[in-house]
Amino acid sequence: MAASLSRTPGNAPKPIRTLKALRQTIRGCRSDGETIALVPTMGALHDGHLALVRLAKTKADRAVVSIYVNPKQFAPHEDFGRYPRDEAGDRAKLATAGADFVWLPDTALMYPDAFATRIVAEGAALGLETDFRPHFFGGVTTVVAKLFNQVTPDFAIFGEKDFQQLAVIRQMVRDLDMPLSIVGAPTTRERDGLALSSRNAYLSAAERAIAPTLNRAIREAAARAKSGQRPDGAAAAAAATIGAAGFASVDYVAIRDAATLGPYATGRPGRVLAAAWLGKTRLIDNVKI
Amino acid sequence: MAASLSRTPGNAPKPIRTLKALRQTIRGCRSDGETIALVPTMGALHDGHLALVRLAKTKADRAVVSIYVNPKQFAPHEDFGRYPRDEAGDRAKLATAGADFVWLPDTALMYPDAFATRIVAEGAALGLETDFRPHFFGGVTTVVAKLFNQVTPDFAIFGEKDFQQLAVIRQMVRDLDMPLSIVGAPTTRERDGLALSSRNAYLSAAERAIAPTLNRAIREAAARAKSGQRPDGAAAAAAATIGAAGFASVDYVAIRDAATLGPYATGRPGRVLAAAWLGKTRLIDNVKI
Repeated sequence: MAASLSRTPGNAPKPIRTLKALRQTIRGCRSDGETIALVPTMGALHDGHLALVRLAKTKADRAVVSIYVNPKQFAPHEDFGRYPRDEAGDRAKLATAGADFVWLPDTALMYPDAFATRIVAEGAALGLETDFRPHFFGGVTTVVAKLFNQVTPDFAIFGEKDFQQLAVIRQMVRDLDMPLSIVGAPTTRERDGLALSSRNAYLSAAERAIAPTLNRAIREAAARAKSGQRPDGAAAAAAATIGAAGFASVDYVAIRDAATLGPYATGRPGRVLAAAWLGKTRLIDNVKI
Repeated sequence: MAASLSRTPGNAPKPIRTLKALRQTIRGCRSDGETIALVPTMGALHDGHLALVRLAKTKADRAVVSIYVNPKQFAPHEDFGRYPRDEAGDRAKLATAGADFVWLPDTALMYPDAFATRIVAEGAALGLETDFRPHFFGGVTTVVAKLFNQVTPDFAIFGEKDFQQLAVIRQMVRDLDMPLSIVGAPTTRERDGLALSSRNAYLSAAERAIAPTLNRAIREAAARAKSGQRPDGAAAAAAATIGAAGFASVDYVAIRDAATLGPYATGRPGRVLAAAWLGKTRLIDNVKI
């Protein structure tokens, strides 16, 4: 453990690989009176993640970034096996963003033999992603609860890019009285509006040229909903735009209440959320109304 | 809040009724360097609970006793409505056992509108109680996780009386990496062997006279299993003894591995667990092999 801590050069965040070392590190921070913010990630870090880390450092003295590609939030047919992994590259990027520690649990630690407990979310977890990835939020809530209990942060930072996930995690924290604050961070985008995503790496050049239509279409839907057009009509128009641009299929375009993800009422904070397939890559995005 | 804290006389534990006051109290203990043990109860306290509180005080500087009759661990046909409640009596008893704080959440605090998260346990939760009370452990794990997140104790004390519950909670804490230690406490018994239980108050004098047969029968089964008799035979003999004594029905008598609640192997730590109805009262008990 001491060896793994001491081989870190310069400003690079310290890698931590055992729960014992993690708890020792956190205890050390606490005894120095430091606060802690956690940024949970699946690695394959991009500027969107680094923005979360920089936000973490404005909230707390120490930023812990976890990197774990969680098998329980992928279905068997999904891209768990080919999900991009680059630990060395990730750590180099994290050094530039000011992360203090990188928490790198492995699956033997996360899901030991006889693992038999899971957290089930309803409410904000119903519909949208769950209609297409029914296993997803069960995997997310369980692994996020574990990360919270491992790191015991004061704050945890999640991107608005995964807006329903953020809502489900806020709901879990409130429902289970978890002793931390959830901070939502705005989505980082390419100049043409495409939301940064580790899965953008899957896109061909032709697909990459089409991809920004997703964001453009939901921004139009947000404007229509704000101006009083009925949500179903505004959503359908956006879906048609996405399909016409060359996306293979649209999982959903939905206009919802921003807090509950229930029905949208004009004048209340709303959100347009969408998921669509560009070739074999599934992209999601959302914008506020 | 200050008012509710200041009206406590002498040695009686301070009642706490809001999450804000609880967190403030816990922060105060922490800033004094004190450790905390939680004893979760449903009130109707008896000497068994008080033994848990005294054990808590040997483990930590401060003992917090929670009292909450959790509706989610009762089915509609069960005894939630008539479950005994006596807050004033409970607080007086707790004063004698050295409890420092009594946490008294209400259902509006525990299960606010739009509550939508639950913890599901398999593994140790399968079979036994779950075969007869399928809702039970989902209610227990969720409320216990909330209590842990509210109180953030270093230790939580649970009686071995509810042996499967203790196993399920240990499993949850391990699976979700909850940052506390679970302490199991031996069952407190009447002189004739009957395990103390708030539900013993339901028994008629005639039923009370029959009740100790439950413990006697499972002690006999433990002796038989230890001497090498096959578990099914030893369990069946115990069930027959319980039935012959005048119990209305036997839900189960089972001989299991003490750690996993899986199949028992001679020579390993084992447990005999039983549940049976005496009139309209359901009694449970267990003993080690």
